[in-house]
Amino acid sequence: MFAKKNQLLKQYIKSVLGYRTTNIAVYEQAFVHRSVVGTNIDGIKENNERLEYLGDAILGAVIADFLYRKYPFANEGFLTSMRSRIVSREHLNRLSRKIGLDTFLITNERYHNLPSSINGDAFEAFVGAIFIDIGFEKTKKVLINNILEAHVDLNFLEKEDPNYKGKMLCYIQKNKQKIEYKVVREITSPHAKKEFVVYLFIENKFIAEGCDYTIKGAEQHAAMSACEILGI
Amino acid sequence: MFAKKNQLLKQYIKSVLGYRTTNIAVYEQAFVHRSVVGTNIDGIKENNERLEYLGDAILGAVIADFLYRKYPFANEGFLTSMRSRIVSREHLNRLSRKIGLDTFLITNERYHNLPSSINGDAFEAFVGAIFIDIGFEKTKKVLINNILEAHVDLNFLEKEDPNYKGKMLCYIQKNKQKIEYKVVREITSPHAKKEFVVYLFIENKFIAEGCDYTIKGAEQHAAMSACEILGI
Repeated sequence: MFAKKNQLLKQYIKSVLGYRTTNIAVYEQAFVHRSVVGTNIDGIKENNERLEYLGDAILGAVIADFLYRKYPFANEGFLTSMRSRIVSREHLNRLSRKIGLDTFLITNERYHNLPSSINGDAFEAFVGAIFIDIGFEKTKKVLINNILEAHVDLNFLEKEDPNYKGKMLCYIQKNKQKIEYKVVREITSPHAKKEFVVYLFIENKFIAEGCDYTIKGAEQHAAMSACEILGI
Repeated sequence: MFAKKNQLLKQYIKSVLGYRTTNIAVYEQAFVHRSVVGTNIDGIKENNERLEYLGDAILGAVIADFLYRKYPFANEGFLTSMRSRIVSREHLNRLSRKIGLDTFLITNERYHNLPSSINGDAFEAFVGAIFIDIGFEKTKKVLINNILEAHVDLNFLEKEDPNYKGKMLCYIQKNKQKIEYKVVREITSPHAKKEFVVYLFIENKFIAEGCDYTIKGAEQHAAMSACEILGI
């Protein structure tokens, strides 16, 4: 069973990243969520958090360098904002699912309610594994050519207005309506950071929900969904 | 005059970083504070903020990688905390002055009260310039061998308790004294981010001051100075 998974992962790396790896162990590590450690599943001893820490920094540097060269006349504010949008937890969660990383994730099934951010965390850990395997320059090439250029719409991110709460406010003021954000659930688990679920109501009618590590972030995500739903 | 500076900078790079550069222009750029642009000083057109943005990310990746390998058994929390201490504005300001980077900084002398953070910013811009000049792998070597190993006491940073406000609170509670933090000045300038200056008083007596981009950070720095002054 483990050998089969191992084979699948090797094929996945070959097809998504374009190279054969001889260091499959570090990639396996990248998919071990901390809920698994200590459970004897596949004899796993270490989770992916060290790789996530490393991958977060490497991804930040790759994207910073990429944008610096792509936009030679853009100021630091624009570059910082674009980078934040690309590496935001929300975007990495989506990207992780888009390239199918989530299918390799090993979690402890006894824990329900694991936050969706485990996908973005695994993406970062995966980048950490790539870096350990092939170094900075090759990681940069792979990430830019095979992930960024193939799966990220920079023009869309550039135009995207990240202030969805502000947008919602304009909308409801124009229509003289009442908007409300309510924290309806806090997801706590011994194996994940705390998350907040927020519902957005207009005139006491539920419109959308959002989820994040902070209440402010969850409100922002709820507002984003609401903008989509209401076509704002 | 400019040619002489250029020569000095070349010598500096040779002595501090250990290599001769053929791309002196990018290093010159790293020392241009934004207050200078538009003043016709030396015909300068672009400031160091783009390089600062790039260097910040490259430095983060180099330090993350260095700590990941140096502490193979440390968890992600420890690694993140150590990295934050190394790349904190306070520490980079000190490091910048320690290696003499501040002597090359070009600022507009008409602006007084430029915050001390311009030194840390220049350090990051300098890292950005090194990266543009010699790429990631060599930048990593230079930063680790010639700066980190030579000028940063990791053991000290490791033991350092960053919660100075907490320490001060314990101290004054033990002595049944009254502590107060007061924002005494806000430094604003069209060419730098806003900074706050906070004074720390014990029993209405001035003990120390701190300065940072946030009031909380300035209080923390004031508490750090007070701990040093009072030998806590």
